[in-house]
Amino acid sequence: MTSAVPTTVRIREVGPRDGLQGESPLSVTDRVRLIEALAATGVADIEAVAFVSPRAVPAMAQAGDVLAALPRRPGVRYWALVPNVRGAELALAAAVDGLTVTVSASEAYSGKNVAMSVQESVAEAGRIAARAGSVAVNAVISCAFGSPFEGDIEASVVEGLAGQLLDGGANTITLADTTGMATPSRIDALLIATGNAVGLHLHDTRGTALLNAYVALGRGLSQFDCAVGGLGGSPFAPGAGGNLATEDLVYLLDELGVETGVDLRSVLDASALVAALVGHPVPSRVAQAGPRRSGHAVV
Amino acid sequence: MTSAVPTTVRIREVGPRDGLQGESPLSVTDRVRLIEALAATGVADIEAVAFVSPRAVPAMAQAGDVLAALPRRPGVRYWALVPNVRGAELALAAAVDGLTVTVSASEAYSGKNVAMSVQESVAEAGRIAARAGSVAVNAVISCAFGSPFEGDIEASVVEGLAGQLLDGGANTITLADTTGMATPSRIDALLIATGNAVGLHLHDTRGTALLNAYVALGRGLSQFDCAVGGLGGSPFAPGAGGNLATEDLVYLLDELGVETGVDLRSVLDASALVAALVGHPVPSRVAQAGPRRSGHAVV
Repeated sequence: MTSAVPTTVRIREVGPRDGLQGESPLSVTDRVRLIEALAATGVADIEAVAFVSPRAVPAMAQAGDVLAALPRRPGVRYWALVPNVRGAELALAAAVDGLTVTVSASEAYSGKNVAMSVQESVAEAGRIAARAGSVAVNAVISCAFGSPFEGDIEASVVEGLAGQLLDGGANTITLADTTGMATPSRIDALLIATGNAVGLHLHDTRGTALLNAYVALGRGLSQFDCAVGGLGGSPFAPGAGGNLATEDLVYLLDELGVETGVDLRSVLDASALVAALVGHPVPSRVAQAGPRRSGHAVV
Repeated sequence: MTSAVPTTVRIREVGPRDGLQGESPLSVTDRVRLIEALAATGVADIEAVAFVSPRAVPAMAQAGDVLAALPRRPGVRYWALVPNVRGAELALAAAVDGLTVTVSASEAYSGKNVAMSVQESVAEAGRIAARAGSVAVNAVISCAFGSPFEGDIEASVVEGLAGQLLDGGANTITLADTTGMATPSRIDALLIATGNAVGLHLHDTRGTALLNAYVALGRGLSQFDCAVGGLGGSPFAPGAGGNLATEDLVYLLDELGVETGVDLRSVLDASALVAALVGHPVPSRVAQAGPRRSGHAVV
């Protein structure tokens, strides 16, 4: 590990949104319960809902009801994913702290995910940012590390999109590995192209999410999305696979001595809760095995 | 990644032994079929069998029958794990190319695994090496990165054991992370202590096997055990978890441009075979998703 490793990493918890979007819908009460459990971990940013079509993504219905029922904790910023201006207006009316907008580096995925071309999507992100006022706007570039449809995407294309989105009013950029195609060399190439001023959103489709996070850390990256339990994946990307699990990243960062402000035991509690709510085990192996010092029984 | 990354990595495939030992027993014919499929991947070393008590490890029974039925391919060395001199004699009679002996860095695990103290086990390894003649002896130090019973093991203890084993006639040393307790800092500490002149045998209990392999590669390590499909784990170590999957390591090494002589497609074929033989999906995510360039369908 080089000396570039940051002393502090900021985690954005996307479990209530990306983690749940492919699951059978949970009740508003249970979604609030999960968000509350995550707020109790110490994480400062939670992507709590998406204002998307309930027909397209049934698990994300009732976003406004979730936000209305959710006590806002000081020190926590609650985010909503919004695909268009109409979604942004609903999210702003529900008093979110931040808007996530997504633009794909892949034309094919863009068409399937939001029924817009990439450039139409960039323009819509600009309109959302104009509407957002002082509310933070994070632009996520999906398929940044490769597309299941077109294969590799040139780093210069991703860099160009990032520049357009910032010019259009986005405050921050996140590069998303939507289908787990990132590799150490792709991480290097994209972070060099974007000047490292981005966050990462990694998926574990090929078991490489934690490794890719480690490579990015070694380049000084300090902003990561992850989802409790490692649930998740786009319903519109074949074989997307789960998100980098929050407990897996926090476990690694704890071992590396990197501060997150997030308590691993509390994440494991939230992970156990989400497993109970969705009714199946979560992919995270730290959730299954416990941290290395937690002790298997000494027998 | 530093410039220390080796240009070539040597893989020892331990799927037929470590991968199968916790599964329901397969027939001799199916075990030979698996070993043959693995030999066809281009891998130069295969741990094919263990000469252990069939009462303790039913899946490893009939080791002699497997070796008798196995065509020996040129360029492939076939290894047997042996817990004692009696096992070594049976393995040598069956004309293996190498003997794997295990010594644990954990007294508690040693007692459970082989019913010997660590030093009794070191002495037995010496007797095995004396019997082996020109046949290679690899000594595996289990629980080298931590024990589920005692917690962390001092690097100096592992270094001391490695020295004793080499003095006792072992040709090579492998450090085993039996229950997935390795972390980047433990990898660093152990490789510094042992002068890097070791192989690694990693388990994915906490989802860190590939990351730990990557860290070791960055230190110049070039010898790895792995098991097709990521099956495996000691029946005597609680929560051991599967081995580093061969396809996951080869996928990473291919992406890093490191030569292995092992064909990923052939490993995936062997992985599909072992999944069919054991009757359940394997843990490897590359096996489930395919390599990044393999293509999800372009739809």
